[in-house]
Amino acid sequence: MTLHVPDFVGAVAHSRKASRVETFIRANQFDRPTLVIDPAQVAQNYRDLAAGLGGAAIHYAVKANPAREVISALIAAGCHFDAASRGEIELVLSLGADPAHVSFGNTIKRASDIAFAHEAGITIFAADAEEELEKIAGNAPGARVYIRVIVENSQADWPLSRKFGCAPAMVNPLLARAAELGLDPVGLSFHVGSQTRQAAMWAGPLEALAQVWDAAQAAGHGLRLLNIGGGFPACYGEEIAHPSAYAAEVMDLVRARFGDVQVMAEPGRGLVANAGMIAAEVMLVSRKSGDDLHRWVYLDIGKFSGLAETIDEAIRYQFVTSRDGEAAGPCILAGPSCDSFDVLYEKKLVDLPLGLTSGDRVMIRNCGAYTSSYSSVGFNGFPPLDVVALKPIV
Amino acid sequence: MTLHVPDFVGAVAHSRKASRVETFIRANQFDRPTLVIDPAQVAQNYRDLAAGLGGAAIHYAVKANPAREVISALIAAGCHFDAASRGEIELVLSLGADPAHVSFGNTIKRASDIAFAHEAGITIFAADAEEELEKIAGNAPGARVYIRVIVENSQADWPLSRKFGCAPAMVNPLLARAAELGLDPVGLSFHVGSQTRQAAMWAGPLEALAQVWDAAQAAGHGLRLLNIGGGFPACYGEEIAHPSAYAAEVMDLVRARFGDVQVMAEPGRGLVANAGMIAAEVMLVSRKSGDDLHRWVYLDIGKFSGLAETIDEAIRYQFVTSRDGEAAGPCILAGPSCDSFDVLYEKKLVDLPLGLTSGDRVMIRNCGAYTSSYSSVGFNGFPPLDVVALKPIV
Repeated sequence: MTLHVPDFVGAVAHSRKASRVETFIRANQFDRPTLVIDPAQVAQNYRDLAAGLGGAAIHYAVKANPAREVISALIAAGCHFDAASRGEIELVLSLGADPAHVSFGNTIKRASDIAFAHEAGITIFAADAEEELEKIAGNAPGARVYIRVIVENSQADWPLSRKFGCAPAMVNPLLARAAELGLDPVGLSFHVGSQTRQAAMWAGPLEALAQVWDAAQAAGHGLRLLNIGGGFPACYGEEIAHPSAYAAEVMDLVRARFGDVQVMAEPGRGLVANAGMIAAEVMLVSRKSGDDLHRWVYLDIGKFSGLAETIDEAIRYQFVTSRDGEAAGPCILAGPSCDSFDVLYEKKLVDLPLGLTSGDRVMIRNCGAYTSSYSSVGFNGFPPLDVVALKPIV
Repeated sequence: MTLHVPDFVGAVAHSRKASRVETFIRANQFDRPTLVIDPAQVAQNYRDLAAGLGGAAIHYAVKANPAREVISALIAAGCHFDAASRGEIELVLSLGADPAHVSFGNTIKRASDIAFAHEAGITIFAADAEEELEKIAGNAPGARVYIRVIVENSQADWPLSRKFGCAPAMVNPLLARAAELGLDPVGLSFHVGSQTRQAAMWAGPLEALAQVWDAAQAAGHGLRLLNIGGGFPACYGEEIAHPSAYAAEVMDLVRARFGDVQVMAEPGRGLVANAGMIAAEVMLVSRKSGDDLHRWVYLDIGKFSGLAETIDEAIRYQFVTSRDGEAAGPCILAGPSCDSFDVLYEKKLVDLPLGLTSGDRVMIRNCGAYTSSYSSVGFNGFPPLDVVALKPIV
């Protein structure tokens, strides 16, 4: 598949796309940290990804950003959904999603939630263990299931390998067990890891999965669905491929190994990250001693109020201040809570203007994914991250 | 000071104290993870600590557990409060706390929140930087301030050293600056680190602080308040001293170095941890391969829904199941979310019954501190940790 889109777009081009959000933030005051999100950008991201993924069914991973306006924009665009819980299923159905377009993709499900999903019309479920298949058979008899497999994925920025999936050798026994339980074992899933920055990184995991797939087919399991999970990257400053080009390259790798199989994808971050910016504020700038080499800059948002993905400094956000262009220097960046774990970046320092001071506005780019829903209910008495969705373009 | 209390009480004795909570959980069903807390136990903890701390003012660190019933029980018992934010100040005042008994102890405060506190009658504030003093002087003119100092504290289970406080050499300049700004610099604060299991661990930090204190007095600052912070331990299975004995030992160390100075303490965990238990449920038990040495046990609560303090396995909770007494073996314990970071214990495994299965009740001991307020607003669509407070004993 060849698409006529630019091969690479840099940070600047991506940030320009978020300009409706940035314009809105610059024109408004916020009394607490606020995520401003543009549903029109989310819909555009869906179209870009769909252009590259061809006939694949795109199931948005609701956990990335469950804002109602985001879900509604994606329903209107034709997107399907991957739900992690009963709460997410209720959310998307309440907004009009067709249950036939919703998968229950968490491999860890409460039995009563499986029964709820089955009653609501959900027909496809993930599993990676015998006990899970038994729960599904008992509460959603006859449902379609796919088995999640562990593949190597050490090249992602936020790897996922350990907790989910089963070893390749367990796949055939689980497929057989599913059939024995009256379920319809339709295929396999895997995950290359969140924020997989280059499409070429998919080659190894796809190759590993192809061997598992072929072994299942050889055993007569008649698989027909390949769930390639998520991992579609967002721009956090480094260059990444255009979503259509990236997706097309992934699909080329998929088609080369799996032929004309039905493909399902579960992008989360890739659909929403660049559609949101956080409006924040500097709370304090200090040095710990007279000869301290670095300033400490404290924001009104931290690990417990939306920036959880700074754990281990995995995701490196970009900051825009009203003093950009002035002389800058490195600083340690921290959140506002009375918790020493609430430091955002200190291993790799952040360059910020030397004139930065308490009360200054700070905007954080590409924050549409994994921020608002990670926020604590009120740690230290700070309210959760506020969310404002821009109105549709008319 | 000598108190006639047992020197050490083990895990069993401590857990017996939580028996009203355990009895309640055993007698009820919960449709989601629920923290059950006993305000009467919190009040007893306050009395135990007060018995050891003698004349010190005890300011409960509200962030440890902001449940309204906890705050009300502590107000009734005569406790004072340490607030981290405007939200916590509003909470304690709304329940009837005297503003003269409330300190604004976060060194990182929004200017408008300082003004709010000042208007509400709060008269004492923490600071560790010149810019913070300027904000306090501008928004709470004439207020009392104490300077937080960095001291070595490597022996705590959850150390706090880096983010808060200033180097000893900055203390005198900051005290002078405070006076110059029209503030009343009354003293110093420090923190030995959360969950400091032995009172003897306070000796080093107190010795270091005494040198800073003496230098300030020699410079004519006339300090009169020593804020010894928190660090009072909770029982997570290992033996810890009885709270009264522990507190008395700390006060002996304080009096030996600081004489008859006014002392303020900010316990959080020590007042609430043993007053709460979480009722949870097993979601799935699995092995990743046929020859996997360890089971994976997935609970319906994880790092994002209340057990954030399992980060780096810092706090090791104790688990009670309905199958205790049956044959047990080691397992990796994980939360329910679709996030591979949401693994509770895997470096040091947890021994749980081999017969454990999906749907089984699990109770988690000593969960009254730093659970409910850390909980996310709804990551993965899971609702926040529910909180139920037991009724007063009549």
